[in-house]
This record gives sequence, C-alpha cells and structure tokens, in this order.
Amino acid sequence: MRDLVRSIRNKFSGKNHYKKKLQKLLGFKPGNVNVYMQAFTHRSAIGVKKTKVENNERLEFLGDSILDAIISDYLFTKYPDADEGFLTNMRSKIVNGKKLTELAIHINLPEYLLFNIQNFPNRNNLYEDSFEALIGAIYIDKGYEKAEKFVKSKILAKLVDFKELENTDLNFKSQLIEWAQKNKVKIEFSTLKHDQDDKIFVSKIKLNNKNYGIGFGASKKQAEQKAAKEALDKIENEWQEEIEIE
Amino acid sequence: MRDLVRSIRNKFSGKNHYKKKLQKLLGFKPGNVNVYMQAFTHRSAIGVKKTKVENNERLEFLGDSILDAIISDYLFTKYPDADEGFLTNMRSKIVNGKKLTELAIHINLPEYLLFNIQNFPNRNNLYEDSFEALIGAIYIDKGYEKAEKFVKSKILAKLVDFKELENTDLNFKSQLIEWAQKNKVKIEFSTLKHDQDDKIFVSKIKLNNKNYGIGFGASKKQAEQKAAKEALDKIENEWQEEIEIE
Repeated sequence: MRDLVRSIRNKFSGKNHYKKKLQKLLGFKPGNVNVYMQAFTHRSAIGVKKTKVENNERLEFLGDSILDAIISDYLFTKYPDADEGFLTNMRSKIVNGKKLTELAIHINLPEYLLFNIQNFPNRNNLYEDSFEALIGAIYIDKGYEKAEKFVKSKILAKLVDFKELENTDLNFKSQLIEWAQKNKVKIEFSTLKHDQDDKIFVSKIKLNNKNYGIGFGASKKQAEQKAAKEALDKIENEWQEEIEIE
Repeated sequence: MRDLVRSIRNKFSGKNHYKKKLQKLLGFKPGNVNVYMQAFTHRSAIGVKKTKVENNERLEFLGDSILDAIISDYLFTKYPDADEGFLTNMRSKIVNGKKLTELAIHINLPEYLLFNIQNFPNRNNLYEDSFEALIGAIYIDKGYEKAEKFVKSKILAKLVDFKELENTDLNFKSQLIEWAQKNKVKIEFSTLKHDQDDKIFVSKIKLNNKNYGIGFGASKKQAEQKAAKEALDKIENEWQEEIEIE
C-alpha cells in the first residue's frame, strides 16, 4: 500500500527524531517544528489520517515571494553590470517548475512530503510548491536573513550552475523540437493569422497527433513561443509523474 | 520650459539639502544617497545632462521582488485564516500599476524624479517603476528589515484601506462598464468562438469605436475578463498622462 498513504504516522511520530531529520535538511536547528510539518503537507493528505497541521498552500504563497526576493538580490549582486532584462531572464530560469523540482529532489525534499496519491492522482507541481512552502516556513521560523542564507548557501551557491544557465536557451520552440527528436515524438506546428483585420497569430502544436499547446501573439514567433511553452509545461508535468519517489 | 528637463541641476546640487529632503520622504537618515538618486533616475534623463548615476531599471527589478515579499508577509499575518487564493487576490490589488502610482503620489515621490519628457513622451509606469526602485534602494542601503518597516508603517498601515480593498471588485468587465458610463464613452464587447473545433473564445472591446482590448480564453467570461483588463490598463496609462506633476 505504499501508494496509499505517505506513512504520516511514521514520519510524525517521535518529535526528536523528526527534529534531527529536519536539521539535516535545513543545516540549522529548527525552532518551530510545526511550521515545517505544515510546509510538507499537501492538501491531499489532510483528512486521510488526523494530522493537526494545515496544508502548505499559505506557506507556498509566502515562500514563493520570499524566494523571488532572495534570488533577485543574489542576481543583482552577482551581475553588477547586467541590465534588468538579463536579470529577469536569469530569474525565470531558476524559479520555473522544472528547475525548482530538480532542486527539491537534490535536497531530498520528497522524503519529507506528505500527500495521498488517491486524492491526488496527478503529482503536478508537488515538489515545486513544497520547495516554496519550505522557504516560507524558514522565513516564519527564523526570519528573512536565515531564509536568505539557506537559499544562497545551500541552493544557489551549491546546486545552480550559473554559467550553464547563462547559456541555456529560453527559446521554447527549439527546446520543444529538440525534446521531440530525442524522444521520437511526431511534432506539428500550425500557425495562422487569427483573422484578416487583426494582427493576431494563433499557433497550435500537436505531439503524436494530440493537442499539446495553443498560443496567441502579435507575431508568428510570439504565438509559437507561447504554444511551445504550454506544450513544454505539459510535458514537464508528465515527466514529473515518472519520478520515483520512494 | 518646465516640460523639458526636470531640473536635474537644482535637485542634485547641495548634498546636505538633498539628504534632508530624502529624509523627509524616508522617515530615516539615508546612508548611501547615491543609490536613491539612482532609484529616481529614469533612463530618459541620462545623457541629457551629465549625471553620475545610472538609471533605475536594475533597482526596479530588485525592488519589485522585495515589495512583493513584504506585502505577502503582511497579508499572511494580517489574514491568518485566509486561503492563498484570497491572499493572492489581495496582493494583486496592491501591487498593480494604478495602486502603486497612487501610493507614489501620496508620498510625494514625483517631486524627486528625474526624467526628460522629450525622450519620454509617454509617462506610462513612471511612478510605479520609481516606487519599486525606491524600495530596492532602501533594501540596498539599509537591508530587508528597514525596507519592511518602511513599507509596512509608511505605506500599508497608513495609506492602504484594507476593508475597501477586500470589497474592491476584481471583475474587470464591470469595472470597465462602470468607467465607460461615468465618462460617457461608448463601449462595445464582441465575443465569438475562435473556431468550431477549439473551445477557445475571443473577445474584443471597442471604446468610442476604437479597439482597446482583445482577450482569449476557454470560456466567454474568461476572454471578456482578459480583454477588459487590457482595456483598463490602456485607460490607466492615459489617465496617468493627465496627472499634474509640478
């Protein structure tokens, strides 16, 4: 029954044991253990067994902003001569679902999570959201500076390859084509003017004859980029499904 | 020639005088005056007269995130029982262009700004961007906690009516209709299915026979909301044009 309940009882029993486990993840002694428990609790887990914690959605709301602020500051300092276009681009390369999911896995966050796969068949965004909630929890427990230190020293300095990110292509169309070739998936783009009067283009993408993305834009290129982004997001979610958690 | 140059010389001459003026705005003694000068300098001002400061776009990038984090934290604490949907909604009611522009005017920020109207005929987002840059400058000069204190005590607690915000309608269509009635502007919505196969709707809005917004969505309502939002943004920019700055 490993797929049924994520062993809530085991994880939450023995506060001292849990505190030690948490310390391994954080690199410091947690003060308020409950707020971390909340950060790790997906709404699907609530109500299955009685847990006294709320789900992590409020902490995700908070952590998302705190993470953004910390990363913006880091980039601002790291690239003193870069303009805000470059900085914004770099930030989106870090705070996107795929990257945050990777980072969550790197720090073994999945080990700590509570969710119920029956109430929650589609694991979309689970790791990303929990990662953000974790940052929210650190902020609530220890304040901005501790959250900043955690993100900068444990995540950015250790796990993010900035040279590689600088060279990463944000061209979603070429990313998608590359993915399709690698995975032997048939890909079709169709891009049309929306109607004669408007200068609006509509782009649709099919992968193996199935609709995967639609995008609108003032140019053909813009419409294709948006459609490709949507298709990549869908693929990413499916890809997350295949990750082995236990 | 008041429209030509925003008296850069006058504003930047006399550092002590400037520091005092700055202190009036901030409520505390600034450390690094230059970073505030930078926050107030729109790119249109650079090169007109020789100023030794860069423009404010990097600080705007930073301040935007810091402001978001501070407001998220404030709402998280102020509404301990609210879900993340409500919190996200409230945050967007504060960090939107119109609201930030209002706040900037309330604290007399326009008095401090440097820009050249000849290089910059359209004043879109000037106050909003400078407001964000100011928060970035406080963060750089004094750190997160001082920025937090400034936003919470000088802005949120004093200038934002949360009861009113809670009751503010985020229904863009009804906002637009209300605006049009008040200003005796003819308004036309036309919403169509994009094509028979897709379940995509397209909504177009004309104000006094001129295109003002277009939106796409999975439902008629969604498409109309997006189109109305676009129209409202355009109106807001025009509205900003009419503000008297001097």
